[in-house]
Amino acid sequence: MAVMKVHGNAMSTSTQRALACFYEKDVEFQFVNVNMGAGEHKSESFLSLNPFGQVPAFEQGDLKLFESRAITQYIAQEYTDKGTQLLLPGSKETMAVLQLWKEVEAHQFNPPSTKLVFELHYKPLFGMATDTAAVEENEAALAMVLDVYEARLAESKYLAGDHFTLVDLHHLPNAHYLMRSSAKKLFDSRPHVSAWVADITARPAWSKVLDLQKH
Amino acid sequence: MAVMKVHGNAMSTSTQRALACFYEKDVEFQFVNVNMGAGEHKSESFLSLNPFGQVPAFEQGDLKLFESRAITQYIAQEYTDKGTQLLLPGSKETMAVLQLWKEVEAHQFNPPSTKLVFELHYKPLFGMATDTAAVEENEAALAMVLDVYEARLAESKYLAGDHFTLVDLHHLPNAHYLMRSSAKKLFDSRPHVSAWVADITARPAWSKVLDLQKH
Ligand SMILES: N[C@@H](CCC(=O)N[C@@H](CS)C(=O)NCC(=O)O)C(=O)O
Ligand SMILES: N[C@@H](CCC(=O)N[C@@H](CS)C(=O)NCC(=O)O)C(=O)O
Repeated sequence: MAVMKVHGNAMSTSTQRALACFYEKDVEFQFVNVNMGAGEHKSESFLSLNPFGQVPAFEQGDLKLFESRAITQYIAQEYTDKGTQLLLPGSKETMAVLQLWKEVEAHQFNPPSTKLVFELHYKPLFGMATDTAAVEENEAALAMVLDVYEARLAESKYLAGDHFTLVDLHHLPNAHYLMRSSAKKLFDSRPHVSAWVADITARPAWSKVLDLQKH
Repeated sequence: MAVMKVHGNAMSTSTQRALACFYEKDVEFQFVNVNMGAGEHKSESFLSLNPFGQVPAFEQGDLKLFESRAITQYIAQEYTDKGTQLLLPGSKETMAVLQLWKEVEAHQFNPPSTKLVFELHYKPLFGMATDTAAVEENEAALAMVLDVYEARLAESKYLAGDHFTLVDLHHLPNAHYLMRSSAKKLFDSRPHVSAWVADITARPAWSKVLDLQKH
């Protein structure tokens, strides 16, 4: 089997999402650093991996994938017997519920949290001014999402049920940076959400993702 | 087997996405109209179906789902032998590629197109003023996405390959309204995208979705 390559950048949240999955599944892969400062993600060779010019991209012989959640789904399904079981194979109802919460992350949690991470983490990092109106708007949207999560997490330890799955994993990068920003209050004020974030960010696989930033 | 119910509104794009799938699969279901003008989607009984208070919601006995794409995935998988085959069962690579393009619709096409449909279709309908700066920004974002689609559709008739799948279906509602707006030019100027939109919006299942608005 051809070696698996992840092209990405350790500072990028979408790259981190894909990497967290490889570490949870404990499968070997090669990390190919994409120098975004030098615009490598817009080079012809990178565009042949992902025409949108965004990291991460995945390569295994002839198979080329992009979009972080398509990569995690492929790895979780392909290596179902290795490492952490990230899907809930079993009844079709259980799988439908997992699918539903994956959609919630993508369509409810991700949009406001990505904008907040941009305003509160990346902009200060690049010396850009934070747009306080955008922060306010997206904090309000995220608060409504976290209200639903608080009720859900009072019923089950993780979003899709009693086990950590791809759903929780997909939240990791944005949740990590939000917990290091002024948006932390939105998590702290909700006890079940707060316990859930503490639990998922303490996973060894997530520490390995963060360790990559040190190289 | 308990009867399948789709709670939604015929004018809502997300409801239409789910309905298109039921009609393609030719499975029986009961449509339960949610009167959004009267705020029924924020009533206690509707919130027990979808805590986000959004249509559509799906119910089959004890199984309750929401998020339009989680509903379509469940129906496409559950009724794999009925109606149109909307998945590409077969090699894991083919399925990974379908998954990838599903993610592209969700994360690249959907955000700008949903905002454009809001500005160009719903706002005029409700007598609200269109925000021209928002239109410009989202048309630019959508144009970049459609450039990628144009190249992709020069290689295969549909986004995931040579067959119509869930990926194409998920685009239907937004593509339909954009083709009836000033954003139509973005499609018309790209021959493969233009042929693809004409093809997918001509499907009988899509006409059935639109017919529901007449009731
Ligand atoms: N939906 C995509 C988003 C990818 C994405 O936005 N990547 C960012 C870094 S986190 C990027 O490459 N940005 C550069 C650009 O968009 O030009 C995914 O989940 O992979
Ligand atoms: N991601 C959701 C979006 C659902 C959605 O936004 N539905 C709209 C109608 S198209 C709605 O119910 N809006 C009312 C609201 O958000 O309060 C899905 O695909 O089902």
